[in-house]
Amino acid sequence: MFLTRVIKNTNYLWRSIATSAVTKCQSNSNQLVIVDINDKTGYATLSLNRPPANSFNLEQLVAFSKALDDIEKSKVKGMILTSNVPKIFSVGFDVREFNSSDENRLREFWTVVQDCWLKLYGSYYPTAAAITGHNPAGGCFFSMSCEYRVMVSKSKIGLSGARLGIAIPLPIILSMRSILSPHATELAITTGKLFTTEEALKIGLIDEIAEDKEDALRKCERFLDRFKKIPPNARALTKQAIRKKELDEIANNRKRDVDEFIAAVTSHEAKESFEIFLDPSKYKEN
Amino acid sequence: MFLTRVIKNTNYLWRSIATSAVTKCQSNSNQLVIVDINDKTGYATLSLNRPPANSFNLEQLVAFSKALDDIEKSKVKGMILTSNVPKIFSVGFDVREFNSSDENRLREFWTVVQDCWLKLYGSYYPTAAAITGHNPAGGCFFSMSCEYRVMVSKSKIGLSGARLGIAIPLPIILSMRSILSPHATELAITTGKLFTTEEALKIGLIDEIAEDKEDALRKCERFLDRFKKIPPNARALTKQAIRKKELDEIANNRKRDVDEFIAAVTSHEAKESFEIFLDPSKYKEN
Amino acid sequence: MFLTRVIKNTNYLWRSIATSAVTKCQSNSNQLVIVDINDKTGYATLSLNRPPANSFNLEQLVAFSKALDDIEKSKVKGMILTSNVPKIFSVGFDVREFNSSDENRLREFWTVVQDCWLKLYGSYYPTAAAITGHNPAGGCFFSMSCEYRVMVSKSKIGLSGARLGIAIPLPIILSMRSILSPHATELAITTGKLFTTEEALKIGLIDEIAEDKEDALRKCERFLDRFKKIPPNARALTKQAIRKKELDEIANNRKRDVDEFIAAVTSHEAKESFEIFLDPSKYKEN
Repeated sequence: MFLTRVIKNTNYLWRSIATSAVTKCQSNSNQLVIVDINDKTGYATLSLNRPPANSFNLEQLVAFSKALDDIEKSKVKGMILTSNVPKIFSVGFDVREFNSSDENRLREFWTVVQDCWLKLYGSYYPTAAAITGHNPAGGCFFSMSCEYRVMVSKSKIGLSGARLGIAIPLPIILSMRSILSPHATELAITTGKLFTTEEALKIGLIDEIAEDKEDALRKCERFLDRFKKIPPNARALTKQAIRKKELDEIANNRKRDVDEFIAAVTSHEAKESFEIFLDPSKYKEN
Repeated sequence: MFLTRVIKNTNYLWRSIATSAVTKCQSNSNQLVIVDINDKTGYATLSLNRPPANSFNLEQLVAFSKALDDIEKSKVKGMILTSNVPKIFSVGFDVREFNSSDENRLREFWTVVQDCWLKLYGSYYPTAAAITGHNPAGGCFFSMSCEYRVMVSKSKIGLSGARLGIAIPLPIILSMRSILSPHATELAITTGKLFTTEEALKIGLIDEIAEDKEDALRKCERFLDRFKKIPPNARALTKQAIRKKELDEIANNRKRDVDEFIAAVTSHEAKESFEIFLDPSKYKEN
Repeated sequence: MFLTRVIKNTNYLWRSIATSAVTKCQSNSNQLVIVDINDKTGYATLSLNRPPANSFNLEQLVAFSKALDDIEKSKVKGMILTSNVPKIFSVGFDVREFNSSDENRLREFWTVVQDCWLKLYGSYYPTAAAITGHNPAGGCFFSMSCEYRVMVSKSKIGLSGARLGIAIPLPIILSMRSILSPHATELAITTGKLFTTEEALKIGLIDEIAEDKEDALRKCERFLDRFKKIPPNARALTKQAIRKKELDEIANNRKRDVDEFIAAVTSHEAKESFEIFLDPSKYKEN
């Protein structure tokens, strides 16, 4: 059987994800994301806060989407996306959500992902991701939607969804394409490659390396400082013009994108993979 | 006040632009651009000639557009775009034109910019820019529309318009995107970054460094020589096929692009910036 | 005369092509391409086999197209495109086909090229090209349509069609654009540049260098091995989503693309070039 090999060969990082994904979420749903605004700099910090691994469930995404609205309304001068979970930025979308048999919830799930992406990728204010640890899949996607990425050393980043048998949805492809070349994007996505911090810098997937979270936050602030002298409206209109094609592609085809997501996570390959992922006892040697 | 800080922090280069922009133009309007055709090589040299800083006003752009027509009709084997002003390629579009209260003139201004770009970006003959000195904003735009760029050392190049509160029009974005990656384009344009000659070479914004104007012209000629053995019609059709998407995007949406330009230069941010730019005495410390 | 210079200056590689193109094809048409499937790995090897130079005529393209169908049906786990001709991957499309006065055959020729490209560029299974020798023009085009390229040293690769006065058709432009930047693509195509193996690696046109054919095949296999743990359906859908824009652009405009091809190979420049290419005795010194 093909998928048993997939799971068997899954590396340590993914083991820890599998484990964490089935650990009961202990945080209060009101605190799934935490927003702080620094009155001195005018910069907001949005911290993903769903221990133990920041796997995005629907509730966290709803909180994320609302936080992005609040930040836009607060007329901040910039935003740093980061994680409140030690050594992990995010392990990506919660596989239990993907494995849901409730199609309405699945549809809502991806619709909220689209909301988050449209708000983040097209945000008025400048954005930077302080990637404080491992960042495969969905978290990589959101950090790629920011304008700048600083990542701590000794971590891994990439789009590993293909390893789980999920055809990668278009907003994710478009986000990586805005950073890497078409060829590099294809190699990275189809192989589900996870890059070390150093590899990610070399290929351009991140912009800077940081020693630790504090250093990452400082370097993100320094990036946002580049816009201190730039009139904000003109900046925002220019950013949105540069990103218009991708934003339109999704905004004008949301239903098609949701349909493709449903097909991707309900495919035979994905279903089989999720079951083993969520209950490794189902894994049988060939 | 935000914009006072912008202007206060503007670097020396921009001071010199501000000064030059309000200096009376001394050249004869018949000579705002000078075209020479070398009968031996078949290469035309188009020299921008509006001292002291080659800031493009409507009259110079009209002359530029007409010169591009003349060059196309002359069946030249290539064209070098350069400057007749010492140490400056161009400081960009004349801010007094942007600050005009005459909407008809503003519309005509940008329509002629579109004409120039469509002719230059889609030209039949091969094109190279000999960038003989500083080249922020509009001059950078036109040199990016050529097929090759050679720049003298100790100069700066970039799209600095965002610093002046101007949302960058689409033809300018598309031209930079045809040279740099989407991410590099966004970083360069939204921060209004001016690159040194060495930085520009490293990022790919220019193709070669020259010692001085003479060396730049020689290296541009050597680039044009690459096409000596290439049948010109096939070459032109191939170039135009490669550039078709960008050319169509503007040619098919000229009114929308003009409307966006009008909005960009009549915004509150831009107006405030222009007034201080053109009369620094209006600048007040916070 | 312009074209006499073109031909006179044509380098040794092209001489050998001219010679080979008029050499009678000695292989059996049933063996114009050879497909082997390795039962152990599940990888197919598709060897171009039209000695002495693998110049694609209509019959070889029809065989190539059919082989791609057979491979897809065989549910292989990957495919390596290579050559059975020593030291030459392919010299490109057979110039005698381009020079045909039979428009129906010309139309069929390019339609089959489109078929091959749509099948190869959008293939379900992963693809790699083992480039075993010189690879200008059409062979470069097909190898660029694979997902990975390994090339033996001391060879040349590029799109040299512009040298022959042929406006480069869109599928070829799109294939190079999926690997190189727009600027690098334009420089490479409009100058008809042939890159050495080392230059090709540096610019990203190939992914790895091999010592010889055996090494190239081994490295291609190692690339295909990267997908051993990736569920194949999700992988294929992701690849096809990444390549959708280019596939649609051609699939939805096949007639226009054929018309442009006919115009390209029946132009005055092309006709004149073909005649000298196929019969160097017609070449006269100026």
